[in-house]
Amino acid sequence: MKKITVGAVLLSMMFVGVKAQSLKSPDGKFEMNFQLKNGVPYYNLTYNGGVVVEDSKLGLRLFKDTAIKFASEIAKPEDAKFDLNNGFAKVDEKRDSKNETWQPVLGEKKNYINNYNELAVTLNQASTDRSIVVKFRLFNDGLGFRYEFPQQKNLNYFVIREEDSEIDFPTDMKAWWLVADYDSQEYQYQETKVSEIPAKWDQAFDANASQSLVKNAVQSPLMLKREGKEPLYINVAEAAVLDYPASHLEVDAQNFRFKTHLTADRQGAKGYIQTPSTTPWRTIIVAPKAEQVMDSKMIFNLNEPTKYTDTSYIHPTKYMGVWWEMIIGKSQWAYSTAENVHIDKTDFSKLTPNGKHAANNTKVKEYIDFAAENGFQGLLIEGWNIGWEDWFGHSKDFVFDFITPYPDFDIKMLNDYAHAKGIKLIMHHETSGSAANYERWSDKAFQLMNKYGYDAVKTGYVGDIIPRGEHHYSQWTINHYYRIAEKANEYKIMVNSHESVRPTGESRTYPNYISAEAARGTEYEAFGGNKPDHQTVLPFTRWMGGSMDYTPGIFQTKLDYYFPGDKRFVKTTLAKQLALYVTMYMPLQMAADLPENYKKHMDAFQFIKDVAADWDDTKILSAEPGDYVITARKAKGTENWFVGGITDENKREYTVDFSFLDKGKKYEATIYEDGKDADYIDNPQSYNIYKKEITSKSKINFKMVRSGGFAVSIKPVK
Amino acid sequence: MKKITVGAVLLSMMFVGVKAQSLKSPDGKFEMNFQLKNGVPYYNLTYNGGVVVEDSKLGLRLFKDTAIKFASEIAKPEDAKFDLNNGFAKVDEKRDSKNETWQPVLGEKKNYINNYNELAVTLNQASTDRSIVVKFRLFNDGLGFRYEFPQQKNLNYFVIREEDSEIDFPTDMKAWWLVADYDSQEYQYQETKVSEIPAKWDQAFDANASQSLVKNAVQSPLMLKREGKEPLYINVAEAAVLDYPASHLEVDAQNFRFKTHLTADRQGAKGYIQTPSTTPWRTIIVAPKAEQVMDSKMIFNLNEPTKYTDTSYIHPTKYMGVWWEMIIGKSQWAYSTAENVHIDKTDFSKLTPNGKHAANNTKVKEYIDFAAENGFQGLLIEGWNIGWEDWFGHSKDFVFDFITPYPDFDIKMLNDYAHAKGIKLIMHHETSGSAANYERWSDKAFQLMNKYGYDAVKTGYVGDIIPRGEHHYSQWTINHYYRIAEKANEYKIMVNSHESVRPTGESRTYPNYISAEAARGTEYEAFGGNKPDHQTVLPFTRWMGGSMDYTPGIFQTKLDYYFPGDKRFVKTTLAKQLALYVTMYMPLQMAADLPENYKKHMDAFQFIKDVAADWDDTKILSAEPGDYVITARKAKGTENWFVGGITDENKREYTVDFSFLDKGKKYEATIYEDGKDADYIDNPQSYNIYKKEITSKSKINFKMVRSGGFAVSIKPVK
Repeated sequence: MKKITVGAVLLSMMFVGVKAQSLKSPDGKFEMNFQLKNGVPYYNLTYNGGVVVEDSKLGLRLFKDTAIKFASEIAKPEDAKFDLNNGFAKVDEKRDSKNETWQPVLGEKKNYINNYNELAVTLNQASTDRSIVVKFRLFNDGLGFRYEFPQQKNLNYFVIREEDSEIDFPTDMKAWWLVADYDSQEYQYQETKVSEIPAKWDQAFDANASQSLVKNAVQSPLMLKREGKEPLYINVAEAAVLDYPASHLEVDAQNFRFKTHLTADRQGAKGYIQTPSTTPWRTIIVAPKAEQVMDSKMIFNLNEPTKYTDTSYIHPTKYMGVWWEMIIGKSQWAYSTAENVHIDKTDFSKLTPNGKHAANNTKVKEYIDFAAENGFQGLLIEGWNIGWEDWFGHSKDFVFDFITPYPDFDIKMLNDYAHAKGIKLIMHHETSGSAANYERWSDKAFQLMNKYGYDAVKTGYVGDIIPRGEHHYSQWTINHYYRIAEKANEYKIMVNSHESVRPTGESRTYPNYISAEAARGTEYEAFGGNKPDHQTVLPFTRWMGGSMDYTPGIFQTKLDYYFPGDKRFVKTTLAKQLALYVTMYMPLQMAADLPENYKKHMDAFQFIKDVAADWDDTKILSAEPGDYVITARKAKGTENWFVGGITDENKREYTVDFSFLDKGKKYEATIYEDGKDADYIDNPQSYNIYKKEITSKSKINFKMVRSGGFAVSIKPVK
Repeated sequence: MKKITVGAVLLSMMFVGVKAQSLKSPDGKFEMNFQLKNGVPYYNLTYNGGVVVEDSKLGLRLFKDTAIKFASEIAKPEDAKFDLNNGFAKVDEKRDSKNETWQPVLGEKKNYINNYNELAVTLNQASTDRSIVVKFRLFNDGLGFRYEFPQQKNLNYFVIREEDSEIDFPTDMKAWWLVADYDSQEYQYQETKVSEIPAKWDQAFDANASQSLVKNAVQSPLMLKREGKEPLYINVAEAAVLDYPASHLEVDAQNFRFKTHLTADRQGAKGYIQTPSTTPWRTIIVAPKAEQVMDSKMIFNLNEPTKYTDTSYIHPTKYMGVWWEMIIGKSQWAYSTAENVHIDKTDFSKLTPNGKHAANNTKVKEYIDFAAENGFQGLLIEGWNIGWEDWFGHSKDFVFDFITPYPDFDIKMLNDYAHAKGIKLIMHHETSGSAANYERWSDKAFQLMNKYGYDAVKTGYVGDIIPRGEHHYSQWTINHYYRIAEKANEYKIMVNSHESVRPTGESRTYPNYISAEAARGTEYEAFGGNKPDHQTVLPFTRWMGGSMDYTPGIFQTKLDYYFPGDKRFVKTTLAKQLALYVTMYMPLQMAADLPENYKKHMDAFQFIKDVAADWDDTKILSAEPGDYVITARKAKGTENWFVGGITDENKREYTVDFSFLDKGKKYEATIYEDGKDADYIDNPQSYNIYKKEITSKSKINFKMVRSGGFAVSIKPVK
């Protein structure tokens, strides 16, 4: 332990003499104090009178120049006189508060409540006559703060060397963390003490298609738990990361202190700023119960309402995909045996077909048939367009054109065929990281989508970013993602973005930016595996700022079914796969397995057919990061409820109390649970299905096997 | 002197034992010999039996990886085993020849002759089983060679560390050179011995808006002169720089040896290559007379014929511009007094006008009136679109949208007004170096041009390139320029590109890419001055690969006319300004001065009104780099001839022999010459104009004062 924890009483006393500004949450439980010490800004945070965050420094360091050109300038020594972290005097203080209810276009609940008290402190640096505003918003579930840079004579343009926002915790805590990386979050979660992070860091990653690790730093959101008699769950994240790089958290493991570390561009610059402008919000969600953290909408509340004038085209969608068979290696994205192709020169119709191209007319029609028969709305098809022969790893700028189908993919016929059966095809725009090329083609690509009636696109950014030297999480590339979102909105298209940056609540502002991947999804079960507790950590981390396209629904979890002797397998039971449809909020939700596998388990598949993808209400019944999640949700615009429960590598029992149901009403529950002999390794496809009439007074005990789960579909009895 | 010059006889003897491949020019005067010495490729070149280029090494060094990601990889030690410069064996040899005549869409002559003998040597590197082809083309005016990379099992993608093509001259020579820079060529020419370049290098540049100097290297084209009893003029340059960085020449001053130095990207990479592919041609033009070098079309011949199916929209254009008054500081590009604007947020109609915005409806109409009255076809208007308030130096990505006019520029009205008078407005797309942003907007920008009837655009790239870390001459940015050319062709638009890379004959392939700037133009007379000999060097350097938008025609050369006490002045006489219309080939030719200045000299202005911008024939009557240029040209599709003569800081006489005129025909010549008392410093506006009947037997002596000149307009007498 680093130091004797300073009690709240002492802390308050310390502030008496130094003119601190205090801010309380609407419910009075949180208190934030801001003060300047020798011109340096600090804040702290208490909850129910106990210190959550000790005095923590704020500020940014800048490069001298408006624009930095070359490494020679970056190598110049830092000079504190350019920085915005010292020499400040308080010149103004404004307070505000808000208590509003807003309706997300798609969401976990019908209404999101945005209730906070606000303190905005204007600080002037006399030596340079520059002013900044530090704005704090204190909610009943935690604190958000950001820097604001008003337009002014001496502050119009600058380049950030680093943002040094500190979060200084008084004690060691348990942490669920990922290694920091400028390009990927596709790592396994680690569960250690904060103090143990450096020792574990070097063993906490495997290889990735694009990888720029940041030593001894961890990704945001970071989930923490102060253990003990009165546990406290703390989530450290950010909100509204727009026109700014995504941040990581540098770890001071001796002092339990974290500090922002922004994603650099290739020149080492961390944000080119023109005033007026604001940074993202740094967020600290705090609650005595894990469920409350998972339920927090603070990050969304800290984003701006959308300016879109028409959101009617945005709708929840369940979809299947010509996808999993490529992921596991049964089929290919590429059409031909060629290994070197030029989008603008190669005549693809003259190439030798490899015989394993999945996106062909015959197979796609079969998928359409199955998806339509089972009530899906969409079908994703990957590998439909030319360029997959050498799409990865060659730093190809012009790697795809996004408009030219392979010779065996009849885009008009297939869309007509799908539409006749009530299915919309979902477009796929893999960029191979060549974002500049995608921007070049995006208008034509979206025009093609409009022409053939696509209304959703899955984008992908596998591999290093072009412009070369940019990162997946650097400012330029983040601007790219939302530029694409805005352009897609012009064409009334929904976006599901893969290998892009994690969302930090932007779906409030860009409601057609439905989801991202930005974490290790189901595909990793074929690439090295996800640990059985993976899906119990994700809702506390990756999901805090927006939906993830995890792509659940794998029934044939053992891959030796396809390839005798193959050791790879999806590390859950089949029943847990069903439960993920409830525990993982995703309004563009996939059923990822092959039709042939669903056909063998049509009784279990019924749950995927029935489950909703968008909700009027959500109850986190019980949850503990790394252990289990039990969630109940009410389907949008209906009286139907769905419950999902999942556990980690340990078997576990849980009794659902159905008191969330309307009193006096009768419901028919269809229960999907692990079979008694089920086991995620030895017998994953064992499950029981039964129906039961229930009311709000019912309680049902569920037994989950190792990495098992249960799912319940509940409909009112008419 | 570094070494005893090896005579041609000895050289031939040396080759006897080592199986050299020899190639002769069609006229037999040049001989090129290729050989491998211990697996390393070498070539040499003789002219009339004398050594021009001694044995010079060829080859490229590569990075290990297909793609290099980060500086850490670049820092890895080089390893010769990855390189394509050693261990070669000759496995094949192919010979070819061509003698064709082709017609440029716009050109200095009706027909360009492309006559060469070719040798292609296939070299295999046994240790890696990679093959490359070194291709030589020997013309009657010099040598071109390049590397070709056939697609093959072991050579599909690679990243170039450096191309090491050497040109090893036997003796010291006089050189006209510019300091090498990855971003600018806007420097003053230096005239020194090759051996003196390093000593002079550090004093050979001034500041530029974007600058990345390459120590002790010089720009291409480089003009050389072997002095002595039998002088030889040598031009070292490149041709067809496409999908490859532009190159500079590293100087080994002791050994009179030059070596290619490619423009790096921010990661230090010098070309991302996918086979099959070819490098640009390295060119060495050699002639006993300077005029022959200037007359060479070898660089154009080494480019590919155009694939454009319609070039009918490409036409010579003389234009005026709302431009010079901004360059000298009399007016402004910006509309308002604001210093910080956001294209997507600022309401420009609410800003306070600065009162100096030139691109306003009233002024533009005045320019249109004057241009129309005097037979021009075009009028360029800069500063018409929002964003100029803070366009430069802030590394702004979204700096312009290219589609939104300022409040005082009525785009529809002005175009309608212009068209009614036979004038087309010329669009201006300044990117401020933000090329990625221009690509994003280019479709909409060209659509706007089509809508209002523009058919030519001046593009600009002032300042550091965005994507940050790219350079004006790096591969990515070069691809950008020609991508814009191709897109402009889709919209039937001609391009005149400023601050882009120097052309290397690409107008053959992209005939709508009319010209570039890529050197110090007239604008520099207001920014620090051009030396009086500047215009006599440019035709031997910058112009070798394509037209330059030099923007001649300044009559009011002294800027104290506008600003009492201003020391700036255009360092030529008025008559020399007229002569530039003939000595400087430019089919999109500007008359750069203000109407008010032309109105004072309508008699001299008549030459600019009469002179053509495109030609059926060109005769370089006499020229010496750095001293003088006398050129005669026959206007396209007419019997009219124009003659222009210019001199450097020395006064000079020249007698034009009109024997190029049709025999027996009578012509009326209108002569514009320096007044007897003219002087570029003391009395630049003194000129004589007189008419004279001439025939092919006529000779006229012209006296040019210091930095003076003469111009002659010749029409057949009917």
